[in-house]
Amino acid sequence: MRVDGRQNEQLREIRFERGFVKNSLGSALSACGLTEVICTVNIKEGLPSWKRSGSGGWLTAEYRMLPGATHTRSKRESAVGGRSSEIQRLIGRTLRAAVDLDKLGDRTIQIDCDVLNADGGTRCASINGAMLALMVALKKMEEQGHSIEGVIKKPLAAISVGVVGGEVMLDLCYKEDSAADVDMNVIMTASGDFVEVQGTGEEAVFSRAELNALLDAGEKGTSEISAELAKIYPEFFL
Amino acid sequence: MRVDGRQNEQLREIRFERGFVKNSLGSALSACGLTEVICTVNIKEGLPSWKRSGSGGWLTAEYRMLPGATHTRSKRESAVGGRSSEIQRLIGRTLRAAVDLDKLGDRTIQIDCDVLNADGGTRCASINGAMLALMVALKKMEEQGHSIEGVIKKPLAAISVGVVGGEVMLDLCYKEDSAADVDMNVIMTASGDFVEVQGTGEEAVFSRAELNALLDAGEKGTSEISAELAKIYPEFFL
Amino acid sequence: MRVDGRQNEQLREIRFERGFVKNSLGSALSACGLTEVICTVNIKEGLPSWKRSGSGGWLTAEYRMLPGATHTRSKRESAVGGRSSEIQRLIGRTLRAAVDLDKLGDRTIQIDCDVLNADGGTRCASINGAMLALMVALKKMEEQGHSIEGVIKKPLAAISVGVVGGEVMLDLCYKEDSAADVDMNVIMTASGDFVEVQGTGEEAVFSRAELNALLDAGEKGTSEISAELAKIYPEFFL
Amino acid sequence: MRVDGRQNEQLREIRFERGFVKNSLGSALSACGLTEVICTVNIKEGLPSWKRSGSGGWLTAEYRMLPGATHTRSKRESAVGGRSSEIQRLIGRTLRAAVDLDKLGDRTIQIDCDVLNADGGTRCASINGAMLALMVALKKMEEQGHSIEGVIKKPLAAISVGVVGGEVMLDLCYKEDSAADVDMNVIMTASGDFVEVQGTGEEAVFSRAELNALLDAGEKGTSEISAELAKIYPEFFL
Amino acid sequence: MRVDGRQNEQLREIRFERGFVKNSLGSALSACGLTEVICTVNIKEGLPSWKRSGSGGWLTAEYRMLPGATHTRSKRESAVGGRSSEIQRLIGRTLRAAVDLDKLGDRTIQIDCDVLNADGGTRCASINGAMLALMVALKKMEEQGHSIEGVIKKPLAAISVGVVGGEVMLDLCYKEDSAADVDMNVIMTASGDFVEVQGTGEEAVFSRAELNALLDAGEKGTSEISAELAKIYPEFFL
Amino acid sequence: MRVDGRQNEQLREIRFERGFVKNSLGSALSACGLTEVICTVNIKEGLPSWKRSGSGGWLTAEYRMLPGATHTRSKRESAVGGRSSEIQRLIGRTLRAAVDLDKLGDRTIQIDCDVLNADGGTRCASINGAMLALMVALKKMEEQGHSIEGVIKKPLAAISVGVVGGEVMLDLCYKEDSAADVDMNVIMTASGDFVEVQGTGEEAVFSRAELNALLDAGEKGTSEISAELAKIYPEFFL
Repeated sequence: MRVDGRQNEQLREIRFERGFVKNSLGSALSACGLTEVICTVNIKEGLPSWKRSGSGGWLTAEYRMLPGATHTRSKRESAVGGRSSEIQRLIGRTLRAAVDLDKLGDRTIQIDCDVLNADGGTRCASINGAMLALMVALKKMEEQGHSIEGVIKKPLAAISVGVVGGEVMLDLCYKEDSAADVDMNVIMTASGDFVEVQGTGEEAVFSRAELNALLDAGEKGTSEISAELAKIYPEFFL
Repeated sequence: MRVDGRQNEQLREIRFERGFVKNSLGSALSACGLTEVICTVNIKEGLPSWKRSGSGGWLTAEYRMLPGATHTRSKRESAVGGRSSEIQRLIGRTLRAAVDLDKLGDRTIQIDCDVLNADGGTRCASINGAMLALMVALKKMEEQGHSIEGVIKKPLAAISVGVVGGEVMLDLCYKEDSAADVDMNVIMTASGDFVEVQGTGEEAVFSRAELNALLDAGEKGTSEISAELAKIYPEFFL
Repeated sequence: MRVDGRQNEQLREIRFERGFVKNSLGSALSACGLTEVICTVNIKEGLPSWKRSGSGGWLTAEYRMLPGATHTRSKRESAVGGRSSEIQRLIGRTLRAAVDLDKLGDRTIQIDCDVLNADGGTRCASINGAMLALMVALKKMEEQGHSIEGVIKKPLAAISVGVVGGEVMLDLCYKEDSAADVDMNVIMTASGDFVEVQGTGEEAVFSRAELNALLDAGEKGTSEISAELAKIYPEFFL
Repeated sequence: MRVDGRQNEQLREIRFERGFVKNSLGSALSACGLTEVICTVNIKEGLPSWKRSGSGGWLTAEYRMLPGATHTRSKRESAVGGRSSEIQRLIGRTLRAAVDLDKLGDRTIQIDCDVLNADGGTRCASINGAMLALMVALKKMEEQGHSIEGVIKKPLAAISVGVVGGEVMLDLCYKEDSAADVDMNVIMTASGDFVEVQGTGEEAVFSRAELNALLDAGEKGTSEISAELAKIYPEFFL
Repeated sequence: MRVDGRQNEQLREIRFERGFVKNSLGSALSACGLTEVICTVNIKEGLPSWKRSGSGGWLTAEYRMLPGATHTRSKRESAVGGRSSEIQRLIGRTLRAAVDLDKLGDRTIQIDCDVLNADGGTRCASINGAMLALMVALKKMEEQGHSIEGVIKKPLAAISVGVVGGEVMLDLCYKEDSAADVDMNVIMTASGDFVEVQGTGEEAVFSRAELNALLDAGEKGTSEISAELAKIYPEFFL
Repeated sequence: MRVDGRQNEQLREIRFERGFVKNSLGSALSACGLTEVICTVNIKEGLPSWKRSGSGGWLTAEYRMLPGATHTRSKRESAVGGRSSEIQRLIGRTLRAAVDLDKLGDRTIQIDCDVLNADGGTRCASINGAMLALMVALKKMEEQGHSIEGVIKKPLAAISVGVVGGEVMLDLCYKEDSAADVDMNVIMTASGDFVEVQGTGEEAVFSRAELNALLDAGEKGTSEISAELAKIYPEFFL
């Protein structure tokens, strides 16, 4: 049994709260157990300077930890650190796969994921919250009379899996993550295709069989989260 | 009448939520109307390098806006900008006046104020939230068996006042703040002494009479907020 | 009696030297006792990028300490530090209140205040010196055939006051400043209106009565300095 | 057939040159087709400050592009950019999996990978070159009388695979990489276990079947590169 | 006799390798004994923002040490350090003297010198290698149909000289450089004129007679290097 | 005749003002025509971290332009720029040649040169002013009872020379400097030895004969400045 009493392939409680930040176009609090991430989506007219007008829109993401989010306060990053940089690149790349940028016109979607409380799986909670906050933002645009038809082409979800004490586990909390031999993030579309797979064994290695078991668990976890999102906004999952 | 229907000397709704960030020793959400600030307090053993052991503790504060907190998303500051720097210096200076650092021993109190949603008065909401989060942190230390007797020597509260359209108003929202001729922040102890007064008329000036009226309003506002805090933790207001 | 033998409400010797930096359009050495600040004013065509043409001019200020200005050499700031940032924001805000930016056209006034020797009151000496250097610069523009009519709408002056050993004192030197319980900067127009009031008691507090006494002292000090400036350039004080 | 005439599962020419940088303890030029990376390994006494003495050694890596390495000169990074940061974290994490840090004592291995010429696959060429340069460095330590027994516990190799035009291809050159729908890096030990798998479809997705085909290709590629390294230093592959 | 057996006025072995970096327009490895510098030349359309179109081209240079180039690994510079900055300014200034910028049109020549292995004289090896890489780049432009007539107006060469143990020596290696009382860099055109002379005695001084002897040695060294370059590309030395 | 009516080998008026910055141990205003540099010298106990106790003292220098020092205001450097870095390295290197660091004990001399007004020759005026400010500082140490015997081992002076319009000129003002074909700085001891020679022809070249004439002029200029310094403090020139 796991440190918090879950089954190996059981997710922690998933909780989504829409409209968490009133001044942003779209926002959500994305919680997974004790992990909580503030996700905001803003859409501005115009493109980054390296992208010419008429070539479709753009989507970019930033990720940070609030200093109080960790057990021991962590220093505020002045420049974006290696870990945050890697995670925000992942969030941006992933969400761009979910969106049809051509449908966006000369606009830039800006996603911000700020971790309020960290207990493992912050990058996955960020992706799931960003997915939801984007839906909130698009609904608001629709209310304002814009067409948002097809902007989200493949809704997706993310979850962590790992090998802890020789067993494959789904959705690692911080204690499990610290003790894991293999750590993997799986991002899949609601229709069951892979968008990103990142597996690493910092000081351990893993066999093809273990890799397959990890992918199975990831598939189960992402499909459950997609189902949660589909309950909130079924219209994006047709 | 004011843009949101309030009387000139009426506060917006004040709302405090304790334990908002589970991993921090003390935390609070401090809301004043639509303005919401996440305040965390962590206390670590040790002193900054410039302070010698045995000379009392230290208290330091950081302040930032989350990018989505403003109507138009604001860029994340890489280095601390001029405005944030000024505000976090104010928060630190003010809270140090509330605390008896000698009672703290060789410890450093670290305060973080991160604005979740901004609608005017964020620096005052930060100070009030930091005051509360510090009380939460001290209560937790007390539960852990530490003596916290006398650490808070003078609980205090902060509020903005201003001259808008020729009238003195209490607790300006963003729209009022943008239109104000004079803008002032008043920080007072629960017992009615001044800790800090900062009044400025960016392109306007103000008379001694106006200054007096502003101070009167500030006195009223801070005493009401102190009363709110005293309801939560009367033991710090004896 | 005070450390340097002055009366409580007596200024140190004020000294202004015009044309201190030959390559700048306007310049002044502003001295107050042993405190000396090099102030230069340059005016360039054009506006900052965020300000559209035709909406009036702009004025911006920078403040730094020369490394040798303090008793113990202070490190050169690579990025502008918190204290310098706060002071240069104050100088800019204050001088903008003195000037009618609409009369300036699409021009930007750049003020630089570099402390040559520091003995307390450097921010006030900077504001007074910047005021004078601006007058020098405008007179030179006038000689070059430009109209400067009404550019200075409200000449102003700044002075520090404080509570030291229980007594209200005017124009604190460094020793007094270090020992002060309350420290306040008062900036007033020559006609007796307030532009900015900043009072703080880092670890002490102050009563309404003390605040009033401090404001009285500040009023006396600023009116004496305005009188000095009016002797040099009466035409700006009509 | 591929742009350079290779079969889908055929590597480019692999070329290793030992002792490329005379002043470094260990060094290698690692070439894969036109991609060339300068890899140096230096070992210094002592540990990073966060690691206590006696807890085993440490290994850290840096990665950069030389400005002239790309078709159009790329600007020199002042701070480490997001992409470089991600790659150097991968190199460090991977090499730490290959090494038994406990056998190293209080020493830090510093790896530098500087891309001399870039034609796709620079991160994999870096890992392979770092692996070889580390062997060179250890042999030199052995000559100097140190025991290096067991320091390399699992020699490993890295290769890129991808889906281009619907076909799974091994070891993508730059042109193929730019056109790839899915891009994956596979890092495996010489004995056939996985160390890291990173697969991403920036705007595409991939099925479980494609993922399996990519892993098969990666397994073939890494085993061929491990065989090359084993020819040079069979003693590390016993 | 010298530490490596050379005569006082004897150069180390000079070695040039063209086309060292395939993706750059022009490149060379410039070696002088154990000192090796990677030099690349790229030419882009357009001018720096401070230079107006039609006023001739521009040439700029960057210089860095690879971390593994020194006996003890040197930290990668995040910002360009004082020494590197000084050297790259020298390389740029010198190469601009060799080139007729007016013949270049609205183009910018970008030179990068990255030290692969350092054994004294890296700035001179950089200048000589940059000179050669520029010739390679111009020949490639000529092949592409551009006129390069007269772009190189005065080919030049650089060498270090010094006073070591009381004797004037040519082309100091690292050991000699560390022990030198006087250190001088001499840059001369192939036709025997001076472009730059930089002589310094960090803690020693030197007489006019010593200065003359140093200049004689520098003249001999640069003429021998120019002769080497003229063997490779006689057409630039007509 | 020259732009300001001087003879070719005539210095501008040299002016030294001691004690210009009261809070520094030693200070001087060093003026040469319209060029004015504020030089301060402070001496602190202790050595830089890379220098071990007992190995003699250290001396370091910083150089900056005040923003108002140039005809058009120059931006304040956030990081030290290439030109300033080069000049401050020169000042430090030169002054270290003048001083017997072994006589200094475990102390660090800190020199700051801040250009108040720039009209050519600022680096030479800085060196001459730093030389004088150092003497002032040492005299003050002597008054405090320290032995300063032999700390200055070789007083020195610096001057610029150049070729302008085909003629060799001494002590170039800004206008001449801008038009110079060759620009050289000569630093010599009072006893006539060279400490540093830096000659450059940015787009021109110069013959050995011109070089000799420039050195002659530099020798004349530095000996006149040394004579000025010797009038002030003959005891350092015995």
